[in-house]
Amino acid sequence: MNIPKSSFPRVVIVGGGFAGVALAKKLSGKEVQVVLLDKNNYHTFQPLLYQVSTGGLEPDSIAYPIRKILQDYPNFFFRMAEIQQVQTSDQKIITNIGSLSYDHLVIAAGSETNFFGNTEIEKNGMAMKSIPQSLNLRSMILENFEQALLTDNLHERDALMNFVIVGGGPTGVELAGALAEIKKGILPKDYPDLDTRRAQINLIQSGDRILKEMSENASKKAEDFLESLGVQIWKNTRVTSYDGKKVTTKTDLEFEAATLVWAAGVKAVSIKGLDAQEILKPGNRLQVNEYNQVQGYENIYAIGDIACMAKEDTPRGHPMMAQPAIQQGRHLGDNLVRLLEGKKMEPFIYKDKGSMATVGRNKAVVDLKNYKFQGVFAWFVWMFVHLFFLIGFRNRMIVFVNWVYNYVRFDREARLIIRPYQRDYSRFKE
Amino acid sequence: MNIPKSSFPRVVIVGGGFAGVALAKKLSGKEVQVVLLDKNNYHTFQPLLYQVSTGGLEPDSIAYPIRKILQDYPNFFFRMAEIQQVQTSDQKIITNIGSLSYDHLVIAAGSETNFFGNTEIEKNGMAMKSIPQSLNLRSMILENFEQALLTDNLHERDALMNFVIVGGGPTGVELAGALAEIKKGILPKDYPDLDTRRAQINLIQSGDRILKEMSENASKKAEDFLESLGVQIWKNTRVTSYDGKKVTTKTDLEFEAATLVWAAGVKAVSIKGLDAQEILKPGNRLQVNEYNQVQGYENIYAIGDIACMAKEDTPRGHPMMAQPAIQQGRHLGDNLVRLLEGKKMEPFIYKDKGSMATVGRNKAVVDLKNYKFQGVFAWFVWMFVHLFFLIGFRNRMIVFVNWVYNYVRFDREARLIIRPYQRDYSRFKE
Repeated sequence: MNIPKSSFPRVVIVGGGFAGVALAKKLSGKEVQVVLLDKNNYHTFQPLLYQVSTGGLEPDSIAYPIRKILQDYPNFFFRMAEIQQVQTSDQKIITNIGSLSYDHLVIAAGSETNFFGNTEIEKNGMAMKSIPQSLNLRSMILENFEQALLTDNLHERDALMNFVIVGGGPTGVELAGALAEIKKGILPKDYPDLDTRRAQINLIQSGDRILKEMSENASKKAEDFLESLGVQIWKNTRVTSYDGKKVTTKTDLEFEAATLVWAAGVKAVSIKGLDAQEILKPGNRLQVNEYNQVQGYENIYAIGDIACMAKEDTPRGHPMMAQPAIQQGRHLGDNLVRLLEGKKMEPFIYKDKGSMATVGRNKAVVDLKNYKFQGVFAWFVWMFVHLFFLIGFRNRMIVFVNWVYNYVRFDREARLIIRPYQRDYSRFKE
Repeated sequence: MNIPKSSFPRVVIVGGGFAGVALAKKLSGKEVQVVLLDKNNYHTFQPLLYQVSTGGLEPDSIAYPIRKILQDYPNFFFRMAEIQQVQTSDQKIITNIGSLSYDHLVIAAGSETNFFGNTEIEKNGMAMKSIPQSLNLRSMILENFEQALLTDNLHERDALMNFVIVGGGPTGVELAGALAEIKKGILPKDYPDLDTRRAQINLIQSGDRILKEMSENASKKAEDFLESLGVQIWKNTRVTSYDGKKVTTKTDLEFEAATLVWAAGVKAVSIKGLDAQEILKPGNRLQVNEYNQVQGYENIYAIGDIACMAKEDTPRGHPMMAQPAIQQGRHLGDNLVRLLEGKKMEPFIYKDKGSMATVGRNKAVVDLKNYKFQGVFAWFVWMFVHLFFLIGFRNRMIVFVNWVYNYVRFDREARLIIRPYQRDYSRFKE
């Protein structure tokens, strides 16, 4: 990789997500050369992917060009590249566009959908961790309804209008709520020649409550909200397989459904060269100390979803969410500056700012440290916080315009099959 | 195709572009059953495709769900389908989702890029007539610059930053202008480690002036605008071939360029069953009479780009643009209503409202019947007219926000490679 040599030490950041971007911003104007790598040329605001899938937002409004973020920072370099291996012996990383030496290496490569080894679900189910995946899901949902119009077989038609969402975390809850609103507000108008009341949205949760990382109150209220929207919640239910048509579970319960969305788990992206047994924690995450240094290394750090800072008070590390990623990125930035100035690094302390999830219009749940609330106000707080953390003034404006429009008009106009998912529907004829 | 029978006569409209949608709106609430078919579930606002390609707009803002347009019209049916054949013998059309009988058939299937049989250019060049094509071009432009960073071979790097646009009509002119503005305002900031001054934008025109359908004044001024932005205009030049790397012309002139955009012609989409020699006019268009009836048929009509109303005063039919399509759609709607009421149809008379093209910020040319002007005011008129004809309040708002942002900030933030074009760059290594 032809990055010019610099007299400053080189910090290589792998990944332009929340953690990587927060770190990069902190290193702006400091005496380091920063090389940021990402396989995409854009940063993805993952919390709003479900709105892209459900036609509420355009993908471009939750993506931001990484080069634009780094535009005003001298001594910054960006390359679109995928990491293939870390070669700790000679302080190099190998990527698909060549190798690069580092003085400090920061792994911020994030997480991906965890199918827990179930290849059949991986093959036939849909994931929603990236913009292309979300657009595929958007296309597939719309294609299913177009397809449902073409059959006289009621059994087949029901399967095409049956959605099974596995995983009762924020992603599953938000997607289920959005689909339920579409069923209620848009489908009857868009498909007057289809009995869309028969469409089903099933949310499946392995444990005994949804949003299990939140308060019991939030879980309860979210369940009420979902049920009021007509979502069927199946608790204590484990999905075992999906052949693209039939969803089986550990019990007798089965679903005939054209769409299964798998939102039941994430795992850290694997980094070759940093995969020694003593480093790897559950979910593939890398064990780091309180300075985010990867176990056994002084100049290799991990931040965000991929880092597991397992200590007494946080035995499973921090939650794999935006907040810890942003905080770790900023903190590591400050620590690297301290290092450059010959000072001591300071340990990372996570400030839990609470968590929230939205179900639908005027329906959200918010857990702050001392204050938990649900409903209309929670929903406005949810929107405000998401607009605030979105990168870029234009994106905020576009998302805001969409939200106001969708709210006033009970609509979602980005229901466009721009690139068909092109599923083979022949199996539903069997 | 399972469309319910109706006591009203059935009008089948093939194509949801400007013409088809204008017609459908006119038939709302009338005593007909309308079935609209389109291969996409959205209407495309083609005049702004070049802004999608150049990162100024998101694709979702110039697309509009056809089902949404038809939502409030009872007795309207929409199907995502591609027409395969017209069977005039038994008044049926054959599509990829089955056959459908008609009482009145309206062909509004539009036009596609015309490569004039040059398969090598078709294979290696880029077209820009649909949203997926425009997104492919967007990805490719950005990928070329990312790729240019990876090579030390100056020759190769120049080819990757060299853009050849063939065709000096509005599409070619607008794309060239947008690329020139990107070169000037965005590339130096996004690619500080690349000498983007070496990027070239070449506009090739076979005739002796660009925008040849407009006034000489408009052509001259557009050329001045483009040259002031650094676009190289090559007039009286015919491109003969392109192997993905080298553009050859009829003379000694050659270009080494990674990107060739073919905007040098369109032709009507072919409709099997309506392809008798006596119907077909140049560019594959269907000869229609002044009621838009396809020659030889009483109940088959063609409107928009695909129709050629060749008469004494319009020997080559009307221009293949939005305005004639909208006017013909509306006019045919009125005529069909007249028919239903047992009245006589009225002949179509085209009202030429003028034409316009934009080159860049504050730079456009407008030809009205009695008033021709260029520059800042023309540019505002161009924007106003395009916003006006865009379908949907949300789309207008989003486009407006983008334009204001882009104007104030000299920026285009949708420079996102959401789905890579995934070109094979190995040929540039040769």
